[in-house]
Amino acid sequence: MELSLRAIGMPSSPIRKLVPFADEAKRRGIHVYHLNIGQPDIKTPECALDALRKIDRSILEYSPSDGCLSLRTRLAGYYAGFGINLGPDEIIITTGGSEAVLIAFMTCLNPGDEIIVTDPFYANYKSFAIFAGAVIKSVRTSIEEGFRLPSVEAFEEQITPRTKAILICNPNNPTGYLYTREEMERLRDIVVKHNLFLFSDEVYREFTYSGEPYVSAMHMQGIENNVILIDSMSKRYSECGIRVGCLCTRNKKVRDAAMKFCQARLSPPLLGQIVAEASLDVQESYLRDVYEEYIERRNFLIDGLNKIPGVYSPLPMGAFYTIAKLPVDDAEEFCKWCLSDFNYNGATVMMAPAAGFYTVPSDGRQQVRIAYVLNKEDLGKALECLAKALEAYPGRISN
Amino acid sequence: MELSLRAIGMPSSPIRKLVPFADEAKRRGIHVYHLNIGQPDIKTPECALDALRKIDRSILEYSPSDGCLSLRTRLAGYYAGFGINLGPDEIIITTGGSEAVLIAFMTCLNPGDEIIVTDPFYANYKSFAIFAGAVIKSVRTSIEEGFRLPSVEAFEEQITPRTKAILICNPNNPTGYLYTREEMERLRDIVVKHNLFLFSDEVYREFTYSGEPYVSAMHMQGIENNVILIDSMSKRYSECGIRVGCLCTRNKKVRDAAMKFCQARLSPPLLGQIVAEASLDVQESYLRDVYEEYIERRNFLIDGLNKIPGVYSPLPMGAFYTIAKLPVDDAEEFCKWCLSDFNYNGATVMMAPAAGFYTVPSDGRQQVRIAYVLNKEDLGKALECLAKALEAYPGRISN
Repeated sequence: MELSLRAIGMPSSPIRKLVPFADEAKRRGIHVYHLNIGQPDIKTPECALDALRKIDRSILEYSPSDGCLSLRTRLAGYYAGFGINLGPDEIIITTGGSEAVLIAFMTCLNPGDEIIVTDPFYANYKSFAIFAGAVIKSVRTSIEEGFRLPSVEAFEEQITPRTKAILICNPNNPTGYLYTREEMERLRDIVVKHNLFLFSDEVYREFTYSGEPYVSAMHMQGIENNVILIDSMSKRYSECGIRVGCLCTRNKKVRDAAMKFCQARLSPPLLGQIVAEASLDVQESYLRDVYEEYIERRNFLIDGLNKIPGVYSPLPMGAFYTIAKLPVDDAEEFCKWCLSDFNYNGATVMMAPAAGFYTVPSDGRQQVRIAYVLNKEDLGKALECLAKALEAYPGRISN
Repeated sequence: MELSLRAIGMPSSPIRKLVPFADEAKRRGIHVYHLNIGQPDIKTPECALDALRKIDRSILEYSPSDGCLSLRTRLAGYYAGFGINLGPDEIIITTGGSEAVLIAFMTCLNPGDEIIVTDPFYANYKSFAIFAGAVIKSVRTSIEEGFRLPSVEAFEEQITPRTKAILICNPNNPTGYLYTREEMERLRDIVVKHNLFLFSDEVYREFTYSGEPYVSAMHMQGIENNVILIDSMSKRYSECGIRVGCLCTRNKKVRDAAMKFCQARLSPPLLGQIVAEASLDVQESYLRDVYEEYIERRNFLIDGLNKIPGVYSPLPMGAFYTIAKLPVDDAEEFCKWCLSDFNYNGATVMMAPAAGFYTVPSDGRQQVRIAYVLNKEDLGKALECLAKALEAYPGRISN
């Protein structure tokens, strides 16, 4: 009774190895500032919670396999507000954005097929590729160049007869990069020339800070049949636990095939859909406050990071992450040390070593991903811990 | 941009082709009695709905990837009540029983590996096998023999070097069969002899009507490392929409590998877990009433079916389905005709053609699966429609 090869090859999450050290630090009474995961401390909208408090159903039934029509209709209206025209039938509700990725891969990729992503990338894409037996090929971006999109040539170097898709995350997790119109057009041209699917994960659409326009893959003309949009309600309304996302495509063949996978798992979560639909009624001021909160946190964090000697972070344009370079020989060792051997006034900081986001882990050896999901006061204390830890760390090097 | 081969091979659900005919019948004002799906009309427990009404969280956060510890602890207590000793760490919460099947397959099966099931079987097992690239081999059971477990020899005829697992559903969907202790021991012996995983889907555990004991795969000694239990809260508490199930195993290697797949999809639905945990507080009387309701429905339905000339159904011992043989040349055509060309006093009946549950569809050509998920009054009317439809159907034959 051997396990499957995919089980053996499945990576653990980039922070998995650190969790026991964090748990142990907490047992020793040390406060841990969690900058390691995308779980915001922002409150879920009251109108969303009220929908639960006022639930008037007597049976919590299966929803349709593609999700409740009322939610899909509302989402079509939501997308229209971003200049994305989609009918309710072009939207399939999924169990989080995660399931949308899984179903997109299952629908479009054969075992051995290749997907190109920009490196570093959201680590779970690799996991979902393993589910599907597909292979991730990557095109490097670099912290020095602010993680901007590589050239056409760099993409074409990775394209083989097995290449079936390009996958982007925009705004990007983990880098915070926001693709420009010119970059999106560059992607469109590659996709057209090589007849590829374009999987576009745009779950952080609301979080763009640079004043540059958000350019969706769905805005691009001429690739209507290539684009599969991956989305989620989780980050927008700080309701990660509801597990409601969606897969949107204008490609009817893809839609029909994806639906067969959706029917196999019966339905997405009903209660999450009720919450998601109610969330769409949230007052403008909620989203504005959340937006302003994130932009302040970003500015505060990046400013603070760059003031620490030897630390460098570019200014992320979107999402709520940044990749920072630290003056240490091995960021994973440093992150572990922060939890196991260090505290400052009874507190320490937990960050995600960036190596786990890179195809070649050594490319991210000196880097960490920091999620600015804590309020400014806590962020300030976390920054202080980080500065003191870097002063004390035996593996410190000069960058 | 071709779709994947698995998307092309993915079957539609057995009732998919009928849905447009049912929709059209409803448009014509005809009432359709739905005996085609396992969506009960039983009310969800009030204490479960109350947990939502009284929700006191301000952020709907990710739950842990293996589910909330409080729920897993309660479930361990629930299983102890059935003589199944499992620690909270041996229980992984999944997005419905469906995801438990998917993750079990992903963890244990390589593409090309074979799983043996008894035929007919829950159609979505085939879909999940396709997700994993695995191959379903089947051992026939027959309506004439009441769908009892085939002989050791019949299983061994299907075993090849690629055979990795046996999958059972007990009590069985679609047949309602409940495995005896002798049959479970037979399965245990095969599993031991050929070193196989035993996936045991026991979501209908509460619904056994024959007075015979429920014998879980988890009760069998000597196969502790082989057994992976698939479970769900959906049917037990009539809350199919919450999407909460679990995968249980004492095999630590399987558990650890399954967790990597779980981490990739982040977490199961939080709200469903809150409802599931509250459901465990339901009064004994709820479960007793539900049980008595199903046993009455079963007796009423099977009695009514067998009174219709030419119809035969064995008496199901568990779950809430039966497979019935009808005096028609092709049950799928008959089911379609009931929706498109027939009504009795403005009503008709929708059933699932059984062909979709068989490996060789012609084995189920004259059969339907009927779910007794409606109250007795509606069941009576549905039976009346069925009797009248069989009288009028041009494709009637004498059995």
